[in-house]
Amino acid sequence: MRTLFLSVADVAAIVRERGVAACIAGIAGNIRADFLRWESFDKSARLAAHSGLGVIELMPVSDAQSYSFKYVNGHPRNHLQALPTVMAFGVLADVATGMPRLLSELTLTTALRTAAMSAVAAQVLARPGSKVMALIGNGAQSEFQALGFQHLLGIEELRLYDVDPLATDKLVRNLQGTGLRLVRCASIAEAVRGANIVTTVTADKTNATILTPQMLERGMHVNAVGGDCPGKTELHPGVLEVASVFVEYEPQTRAEGDIQQMPRDFPVTEVWQVLAGARPGRQLDSEITVFDSVGFALEDFSALRYLRDAAEALGVGETLDLVPELPDPKDLFGRVKGRRLRLAA
Amino acid sequence: MRTLFLSVADVAAIVRERGVAACIAGIAGNIRADFLRWESFDKSARLAAHSGLGVIELMPVSDAQSYSFKYVNGHPRNHLQALPTVMAFGVLADVATGMPRLLSELTLTTALRTAAMSAVAAQVLARPGSKVMALIGNGAQSEFQALGFQHLLGIEELRLYDVDPLATDKLVRNLQGTGLRLVRCASIAEAVRGANIVTTVTADKTNATILTPQMLERGMHVNAVGGDCPGKTELHPGVLEVASVFVEYEPQTRAEGDIQQMPRDFPVTEVWQVLAGARPGRQLDSEITVFDSVGFALEDFSALRYLRDAAEALGVGETLDLVPELPDPKDLFGRVKGRRLRLAA
Repeated sequence: MRTLFLSVADVAAIVRERGVAACIAGIAGNIRADFLRWESFDKSARLAAHSGLGVIELMPVSDAQSYSFKYVNGHPRNHLQALPTVMAFGVLADVATGMPRLLSELTLTTALRTAAMSAVAAQVLARPGSKVMALIGNGAQSEFQALGFQHLLGIEELRLYDVDPLATDKLVRNLQGTGLRLVRCASIAEAVRGANIVTTVTADKTNATILTPQMLERGMHVNAVGGDCPGKTELHPGVLEVASVFVEYEPQTRAEGDIQQMPRDFPVTEVWQVLAGARPGRQLDSEITVFDSVGFALEDFSALRYLRDAAEALGVGETLDLVPELPDPKDLFGRVKGRRLRLAA
Repeated sequence: MRTLFLSVADVAAIVRERGVAACIAGIAGNIRADFLRWESFDKSARLAAHSGLGVIELMPVSDAQSYSFKYVNGHPRNHLQALPTVMAFGVLADVATGMPRLLSELTLTTALRTAAMSAVAAQVLARPGSKVMALIGNGAQSEFQALGFQHLLGIEELRLYDVDPLATDKLVRNLQGTGLRLVRCASIAEAVRGANIVTTVTADKTNATILTPQMLERGMHVNAVGGDCPGKTELHPGVLEVASVFVEYEPQTRAEGDIQQMPRDFPVTEVWQVLAGARPGRQLDSEITVFDSVGFALEDFSALRYLRDAAEALGVGETLDLVPELPDPKDLFGRVKGRRLRLAA
């Protein structure tokens, strides 16, 4: 009854063994399956603790069998201290007993699952045959987005822009040999021009306007990943006004997504409804679609399931002495009784 | 920049080294210090996921420097599967970066901190000179309550009752040699008779009436620990009606405590106000006081601080590869790049 622990090294080993694209595809499959049973889950907006420098969040979700939560931070200035902007870990537990079965790193995994979720949404929202994607923001999550869209959407060309040219250098280095055509651009407008899909994955905790209405072209799909907490947006409101907007979990996105800039009754569609065929996704070739992604707990649930199965299949991980094994569960005290007391007893 | 991990064995080693009573006293000191700067904390009611068999909760709290959360379950029937009713673990992190500094078991620690909180409250609510305590519910947490009240309140005699006589056998065995006078009683009423303090620490997830108004005596202090979630109470409403009632964090206790049975405007006092001298605690020798304890995140914050300091002082624990150390924090992908890709680059 011990807890399985997957360290950063363990998850990296899983990803190296299977490949980044295969992991994103596997998690995407789990996300699709879990989103199709949306109503089975006990959902809530995440619990966020904001400070001047960033945010720390807890993201729980559960169905009748399993409970999961993720701890995740977002601190845009962390790179100045050689720390990742986003760090995460999470737990999968049994609802029937509360026993934590799996504790895993989720920093690498968050990048995988965010790319997986973006791809799942784009599959029903982007124009079929999309080949060119603009990638605005070339930081920690960008390569995962690139490979997810290459393998799950068929993207062949990436048009790159980042305020930090070193970030783009790194991305170009990392994606050599993948077969993706990489085009460095001098501005956001240049990168977006002619793209079928625009992915924004920037980190600043500000109301930024990465994408303005003038940059939009007919039929574009916007995968807006970086605007994900109050006061942190990427899209000019005018972009949202002319687009069909899709979200993960409406109550959370109203507070955290780019739609925080819009009136409370601004119309949005939850992606699970599109996957389930209950609501239309893209209806016209000329339509502009926006996936206002903030990251929802259910995606981490899907990713934790993937890690659990992969760890089992590959024999990765170790057990952790996280909760006590007690001969008599009512005798917790027996676990700490000192020698002196034991002798006296 | 790694995370310190304290396993069950590590925390048990700390407790054996220092002694149960010293740990409870140490945590009580931290609780008192943290409650005295109540207004510095970003507080919220815990996030609970209820099922037919129990509850799983996340309990976050933070000040300007540190963030903590606890994962804890409550499953009264877990003992049938040889699992503890309550299992817990938690994290202490830096607010400035989101870096998780400490991950610790909190099952043993929850028992220690709950006893510490009960003692802190009783020190300002019980009649000075209280020597006799009834202990109703002799399960996993009972010995910790007993030792906390012996060492921090001066309790000399325990009057014991549990529906399960084997639980009482275990408690009597565990407390041999402590100097406490242990009196087994045939009923709750018998245990309560003549007691200065009544501690109820039962586990059933029902609206139970462990304590009824007929059992009350003038000047009693009731330390009601077991009624701690919606539908789980221990006190007959008549007990609350005649008592001065004290709580940890009012918004949470209104939903979870014994006062969930009372009107929304039923008067209560938060314990921190009494500690700070802003509101009176016990005013009359004849008064009946109730501490309607449900367990608040700040107590776990105080306990995690204690564990961190004790682990450092005693050299206990190991580091955990929970979040990635990256030469370039924007190069998360570098951590998972496969050999094939590296050769191609």
